Amino acid sequence: MVTTHQMSTAAVYGAGGYLGGELLRVLSAHPDIEVTQAISRTHANERVGDRAPNLDRFADLAFSPADAAVDADVAFLARPSGEAMQRVPDLLERGVRVVDLSADYRLRDPSLYARVYGRPHADPSHLDEAVYGLPELFRDDVRRARLVANPGCYPTATLLALAPLVKSHEIAGPVVVDAKSGTSGVGAEPTSTSHHPEVAGTVLPYGTPEHRHVPEMTEILRRLDGGAPPRLVFVPHLVPLVRGILCSIYPSTGPTGDADRWSELYRRAYGASPFVRVGPTPRLPWASGTNRCYLSLQRSGSDPVIFSALDNLGKGGASQAVQNANLMLGLDETAGLRTAGFAV
Amino acid sequence: MVTTHQMSTAAVYGAGGYLGGELLRVLSAHPDIEVTQAISRTHANERVGDRAPNLDRFADLAFSPADAAVDADVAFLARPSGEAMQRVPDLLERGVRVVDLSADYRLRDPSLYARVYGRPHADPSHLDEAVYGLPELFRDDVRRARLVANPGCYPTATLLALAPLVKSHEIAGPVVVDAKSGTSGVGAEPTSTSHHPEVAGTVLPYGTPEHRHVPEMTEILRRLDGGAPPRLVFVPHLVPLVRGILCSIYPSTGPTGDADRWSELYRRAYGASPFVRVGPTPRLPWASGTNRCYLSLQRSGSDPVIFSALDNLGKGGASQAVQNANLMLGLDETAGLRTAGFAV
Amino acid sequence: MVTTHQMSTAAVYGAGGYLGGELLRVLSAHPDIEVTQAISRTHANERVGDRAPNLDRFADLAFSPADAAVDADVAFLARPSGEAMQRVPDLLERGVRVVDLSADYRLRDPSLYARVYGRPHADPSHLDEAVYGLPELFRDDVRRARLVANPGCYPTATLLALAPLVKSHEIAGPVVVDAKSGTSGVGAEPTSTSHHPEVAGTVLPYGTPEHRHVPEMTEILRRLDGGAPPRLVFVPHLVPLVRGILCSIYPSTGPTGDADRWSELYRRAYGASPFVRVGPTPRLPWASGTNRCYLSLQRSGSDPVIFSALDNLGKGGASQAVQNANLMLGLDETAGLRTAGFAV
Amino acid sequence: MVTTHQMSTAAVYGAGGYLGGELLRVLSAHPDIEVTQAISRTHANERVGDRAPNLDRFADLAFSPADAAVDADVAFLARPSGEAMQRVPDLLERGVRVVDLSADYRLRDPSLYARVYGRPHADPSHLDEAVYGLPELFRDDVRRARLVANPGCYPTATLLALAPLVKSHEIAGPVVVDAKSGTSGVGAEPTSTSHHPEVAGTVLPYGTPEHRHVPEMTEILRRLDGGAPPRLVFVPHLVPLVRGILCSIYPSTGPTGDADRWSELYRRAYGASPFVRVGPTPRLPWASGTNRCYLSLQRSGSDPVIFSALDNLGKGGASQAVQNANLMLGLDETAGLRTAGFAV
Repeated sequence: MVTTHQMSTAAVYGAGGYLGGELLRVLSAHPDIEVTQAISRTHANERVGDRAPNLDRFADLAFSPADAAVDADVAFLARPSGEAMQRVPDLLERGVRVVDLSADYRLRDPSLYARVYGRPHADPSHLDEAVYGLPELFRDDVRRARLVANPGCYPTATLLALAPLVKSHEIAGPVVVDAKSGTSGVGAEPTSTSHHPEVAGTVLPYGTPEHRHVPEMTEILRRLDGGAPPRLVFVPHLVPLVRGILCSIYPSTGPTGDADRWSELYRRAYGASPFVRVGPTPRLPWASGTNRCYLSLQRSGSDPVIFSALDNLGKGGASQAVQNANLMLGLDETAGLRTAGFAV
Repeated sequence: MVTTHQMSTAAVYGAGGYLGGELLRVLSAHPDIEVTQAISRTHANERVGDRAPNLDRFADLAFSPADAAVDADVAFLARPSGEAMQRVPDLLERGVRVVDLSADYRLRDPSLYARVYGRPHADPSHLDEAVYGLPELFRDDVRRARLVANPGCYPTATLLALAPLVKSHEIAGPVVVDAKSGTSGVGAEPTSTSHHPEVAGTVLPYGTPEHRHVPEMTEILRRLDGGAPPRLVFVPHLVPLVRGILCSIYPSTGPTGDADRWSELYRRAYGASPFVRVGPTPRLPWASGTNRCYLSLQRSGSDPVIFSALDNLGKGGASQAVQNANLMLGLDETAGLRTAGFAV
Repeated sequence: MVTTHQMSTAAVYGAGGYLGGELLRVLSAHPDIEVTQAISRTHANERVGDRAPNLDRFADLAFSPADAAVDADVAFLARPSGEAMQRVPDLLERGVRVVDLSADYRLRDPSLYARVYGRPHADPSHLDEAVYGLPELFRDDVRRARLVANPGCYPTATLLALAPLVKSHEIAGPVVVDAKSGTSGVGAEPTSTSHHPEVAGTVLPYGTPEHRHVPEMTEILRRLDGGAPPRLVFVPHLVPLVRGILCSIYPSTGPTGDADRWSELYRRAYGASPFVRVGPTPRLPWASGTNRCYLSLQRSGSDPVIFSALDNLGKGGASQAVQNANLMLGLDETAGLRTAGFAV
Repeated sequence: MVTTHQMSTAAVYGAGGYLGGELLRVLSAHPDIEVTQAISRTHANERVGDRAPNLDRFADLAFSPADAAVDADVAFLARPSGEAMQRVPDLLERGVRVVDLSADYRLRDPSLYARVYGRPHADPSHLDEAVYGLPELFRDDVRRARLVANPGCYPTATLLALAPLVKSHEIAGPVVVDAKSGTSGVGAEPTSTSHHPEVAGTVLPYGTPEHRHVPEMTEILRRLDGGAPPRLVFVPHLVPLVRGILCSIYPSTGPTGDADRWSELYRRAYGASPFVRVGPTPRLPWASGTNRCYLSLQRSGSDPVIFSALDNLGKGGASQAVQNANLMLGLDETAGLRTAGFAV
């Protein structure tokens, strides 16, 4: 086929992990982005097809080593926090746009980063430039960005649920966020927490006394609120599922919340966003493997409760990174992201 | 063996259901109570061993029909709400002690019962006499009772977690109770909610806008508080497990809660209760098949969070009913209930 | 966009069930087939988007009633066996190509159909014309077919695994096929077998003394063998998963099987088939939501064992039906079917 | 209470692992055996109650270090293969009876042990004395034994299912054994195989080309057969469950097997064995936490198939070890083992 269609090129760091593998999966069906480098410290020089037989489009692509020179329109960094800030300066200098899936560029204040992640920030000069990659809230900024900090899975689910209320100063707080997550968020490395006999028969609260995502969420809520955001009481739980997050969110507004006005706020906030839907009680398979977030506004007695569901590897990770890259590259926001989720 | 040991006798209504089956299972190893009648509308005249090969002690016992004349020291009523209030007057008249596992005698106010359950109460005259069967809170009343209303699974987990605080007026409210439950609470009858493909791949919030257990919990909290109990925001979720409930409980006390004083309140409340343990983050297998409730007091940021875990068929159902019967019959509270739960 | 691209049209019967819903899901991203009718007895006149919020491309399409007049290039019949044979004569007469996902046209002999399904066949005159829709074995026949009998999920997994050996008369038999299936194969209707508490904690063998798929598999093996096919000992088991089938297949060839020759047989059989891969031990997520079947040839001691994995709703159902329709309509065999499966 | 009841004493090696923990759990309710030493290399000097809050009878018992001097009537060795043979000579010399839950004393031939386990046997002089601890087959030998080799979980399920047929030379072979196991058999140490995201969404065959349990099973079948036992084709699979093994066993006897004669063989073999039941299709919860094995004889077409179900930590591990100890100590075989399993 003769075509004048010009594909953008992409490099994926951490391609041997769960987020990196999901990036390859999503990009394997992308009409406009071609993966030219799949970088993996552990699997360098192995064929992608041997590690991931599900990805037959990349059957013969060899993993590049961690120090490979990257030449691509966009680089996805799906590596643990701490590594991106070592790589970003050089990538930006080479003219490579960056979507970082780690936490390195999510907080603007380097001293807060140091407190939360236990090490100084190695690249504070780019913190102000980094755009928080939640396109439904910051779409225009993402379009212009060279460097996008892709949000964590919990913050994506929580912030999409709370943004319309916080922007309109509808809630005072505290807001209880009780999150239930599948185990793929733990990553590909075995741990005692994710050992099947330990986690398959229980619901496991963790992250007390404070989960690392709380400062990230609070900072974004502050930007939305423009002042004093509601206090979050955030407790994540592992549930015996692999993919998916459901957040049950309890704003302390008491019996006076106005259901109709709230519905209207959400309609206005997300009417133009193809990946956020407000409707009935969500089911995780609807979101599985997709870039969708399903929201539902309900009442428990006279109190409001909001449910928010997404795939932690999808809208909470890899596919949101592709959405960001689409915007940064001037492509259709939904390119490569139109697959529908499962009924079951 | 010649023995003067006198066994008490028991009849189990609803012996073909999950709660009734669990009653038979627990009683099959009870040293002082002997099941003489296993009553089942559906399985009348079948052998218990044919329906439940796990219960080989009862292999040759035949299920009695629903209208069997009961002659026993205690009757367990493990039937849907609405049936117990038809049977209790006659049983009491015959001198049979009753532990009702349905909701029929949990609310003292017949008009509240009518509102919540959608039908008038058929036996209002015994509502005042009925003792709420949470022995850790009402042990002496249970000892003297002819009629015990065995609590629901969610109220047991929630009330044991909140009682020490409410009695001491430590919390104002609202209190968010986010409950995660296995599916056996649905009962043995197939429904679309409990259809495996529908529930196995998700976390399913339900019970909005108001779950039937809320009035029950609120009534007991009112008795404990002596006045205006904290408002509960209670949302149950089905998780892909069979047995077990974990409640994550968020009291709105703000950053001023006093951890040491709270720990002392729980120690004092449950020090003499063999089935309630306060300690680290609980795991559901510890409670599985047992009469135990595991509590844990923790903090999320500066806010308190309490975790409460039990087996909905055990401490949240059948084994608590046996604990109540033990007390009513003057037996050791722990008789037949000493089996330890699983590590995994 | 001005385009001369002509979409083929499709009607989906049984669009409210699991197979019908998966057909809608797959077709929602199909570049060349447009669903013009989603037919559902139960949900007639409801909007698809209200029943299936995951299918937002069809948000505003209304379900048609069961007796709707169908005008489409192809009709997918995803209804229980017994109904297709009532509809097919009329559809063919109207010039509509048919892919039947039920068992009605899988057996050529109407008396065998009557024995297996307990009713006479209502349309024996089309049995000879119907093509068994396993494209990897009968691709040219499918291309020319007006009526395709889409195989069952177990037969697809089993026949793809055994065909190269049976065609080459490599195995005598009996062949043990121990199949493990997720519960979505049960369908959307709740049953006691698929009640979550019953199936989530066990592996449940069923289908003894003879599963309905055995005659189907035996008939196809006979065609491949040209004479006396190996006897199958087929036992399906429900496992606590929603999607996916793994068949472990034990051919009785004894210690003399030649691994190299066998590998070569499979390479030759499936080298040109984009949806069958022979490789390492398969994992069900690789197949999830896709049209892929993963095969692996291994040894247990000196005996051969073959593993075959697919998604019962995908290659074992809806996506294979789309593959058949692609061939019948002269489209690219892989159109709409290129999404990669999950790593986890 | 004044009592003349004399408790036997027990030491448990490997008390911090899954099998060791299950031994403590079972023994915590044993009327005649008291655990006096819980030995754990990893947790020495910690309190059992801190590691295992489910075991409140042992809340204040401290784990002993690995080199503790053991003074007990019986020692349970729940440590990886290779360690028992280092400890047994000394224990026997001190007059301590030993139940070894590892593989060290299951094979009589030290050269076979060296081939299977990849190291020379360190205590070949006790191999002949060791009794294979399957009481249903070797009860009298166990009663007289000083050293019992507790069988593996797969061999227990397989041998109980096949013994009556092999003893009577009813089957020639090969016999396909397709085993499905929960993940607790992997042990408490995290591995990539047991990482929840990897195993929760699939059925994972493993152990090809030969599982270590095959020589063990073959050796016992040879003893039962008295000559040339049937060849086993054994393939284990991990299923997404924690506890439980179901073996589906396909003897190659062809269509001539005699169902009535077979039933009679099993009745005779197990009529006096309280822990083996022959009946309908077994369910794993029936066996969970118990010492029971459930067998079922069925047909697939004209071929026989046998299902065998047990708890790999129970009858396939810890509770069988207690059954063996009961016999060795002259106690009732069922002491401490009478708890009934779950319906669900």
